[in-house]
Amino acid sequence: MSTFVHVEKIDMQSNTRKMIGEPVVVEVPVNIFVNNKFVTTLFALPKLKRELALGWLFDEGILQSLDEIKEVVVNQSNVNVITKGPIKEEALQAVGVAACGSSINKFLMTISKAVEQPVESSYKVKAYDIIRFVKELDRSKLYRLTRGVHVAAIFESGKLVAFAEDIGRHNAVDKVIGISIESRVNFSNSVLVSSGRQPADMVLKTARMKIPIVVSIAAPIYSGIIAAEKTGVTLVCHAKSHQIRVYTHPYRILL
Amino acid sequence: MSTFVHVEKIDMQSNTRKMIGEPVVVEVPVNIFVNNKFVTTLFALPKLKRELALGWLFDEGILQSLDEIKEVVVNQSNVNVITKGPIKEEALQAVGVAACGSSINKFLMTISKAVEQPVESSYKVKAYDIIRFVKELDRSKLYRLTRGVHVAAIFESGKLVAFAEDIGRHNAVDKVIGISIESRVNFSNSVLVSSGRQPADMVLKTARMKIPIVVSIAAPIYSGIIAAEKTGVTLVCHAKSHQIRVYTHPYRILL
Repeated sequence: MSTFVHVEKIDMQSNTRKMIGEPVVVEVPVNIFVNNKFVTTLFALPKLKRELALGWLFDEGILQSLDEIKEVVVNQSNVNVITKGPIKEEALQAVGVAACGSSINKFLMTISKAVEQPVESSYKVKAYDIIRFVKELDRSKLYRLTRGVHVAAIFESGKLVAFAEDIGRHNAVDKVIGISIESRVNFSNSVLVSSGRQPADMVLKTARMKIPIVVSIAAPIYSGIIAAEKTGVTLVCHAKSHQIRVYTHPYRILL
Repeated sequence: MSTFVHVEKIDMQSNTRKMIGEPVVVEVPVNIFVNNKFVTTLFALPKLKRELALGWLFDEGILQSLDEIKEVVVNQSNVNVITKGPIKEEALQAVGVAACGSSINKFLMTISKAVEQPVESSYKVKAYDIIRFVKELDRSKLYRLTRGVHVAAIFESGKLVAFAEDIGRHNAVDKVIGISIESRVNFSNSVLVSSGRQPADMVLKTARMKIPIVVSIAAPIYSGIIAAEKTGVTLVCHAKSHQIRVYTHPYRILL
């Protein structure tokens, strides 16, 4: 999680240098296998590895249902997901390389094709609740200690059901999705809140899970706005204590 | 670079919602080819594509000298680097997959092996100059406008010689390295300053270029401290207006 290092602190006001102790974040490689076949390595905080792997396999579109899974074996850095039936080779190959050798048009087509069925939930939340959700991100002690992690949370019908922190903003989202899948959260009544910027790849993770509302305290990226628009996701960014900005499908946010 | 979107701003204090215009960052896929062969796609701001590709090829260890290059052809999203001689297949394959299927020990070994010859520069800078460098990062208008980008800069003998902004903290570093390579900056007398956190992959980009001092306004990650320690790089993080923290090889920082 975090480890202690010695660091020389130089203070310009007092013109001094002294050694101090400081906690810093530790990341490890987490290797994801499906049916003993290596799929990818994510660099992540060494916590919730099982949930990270599950969330990633679902929100990247490789798995669709818990019923497909026979067992999940976690062995140190390796998470091996054994499925009941075979997994389509194309599904595994499509991940991460969707945009390789891409043009801008292909990139935008990838976004619009990524979710064939848009998110159609009629779930709505109050702006005030969004602010309440955002405040919950502060529960990350590791963030307060190190300033070196991202955080994510999922709220189902207004209630916190998953919370995770990670060095990568993608990993933090994968983890809360993994936690929610295992506890069979109803995504169509859920809000995903995180500390990371929102380009298309982030928004698409949420859209694939049919989560209707994505909130970030950080900025949106143009591709993320397009992805949210096309997939029917309500994208809220720059969420602060007194105001929020709704980039797409604002009808789900009530005053 | 940035584009204008319409966003619904909800203000909780005045209990109002209204449409406002706002600039957001646009990223595009940049496809890097070496001798017409596809190598990777980076998602980046559509500026300094040539420098991005060059910087990436150098700081990932694929190219070592400008003399190896015959020409660089930029065609929309594609940058094709044509070399005078053949490029070793292993060099291209090693990139990005070095840690796949990795254990924690292999990960640490990758770090320690990545730079066979440590950075041995005796270049030193004053803590006061570090603060001056950090202030220069504020010159990014795009950052002030959108809060959606990272910035990086290189200072050679105390003078700003390269500046770049990008959606990715890695890309911003690749770009300033690319700019510096083309203007034949002396890396051994240089400081790289950026806004991004510093895990091993970030520090190693700098170490491969033999840049002795890396400064960030953000946090270090444990792997970045190990990488800096082993490669002889002076790693300064949490650099603020009145203090800096030196994690490794502090002898290069003078009061």
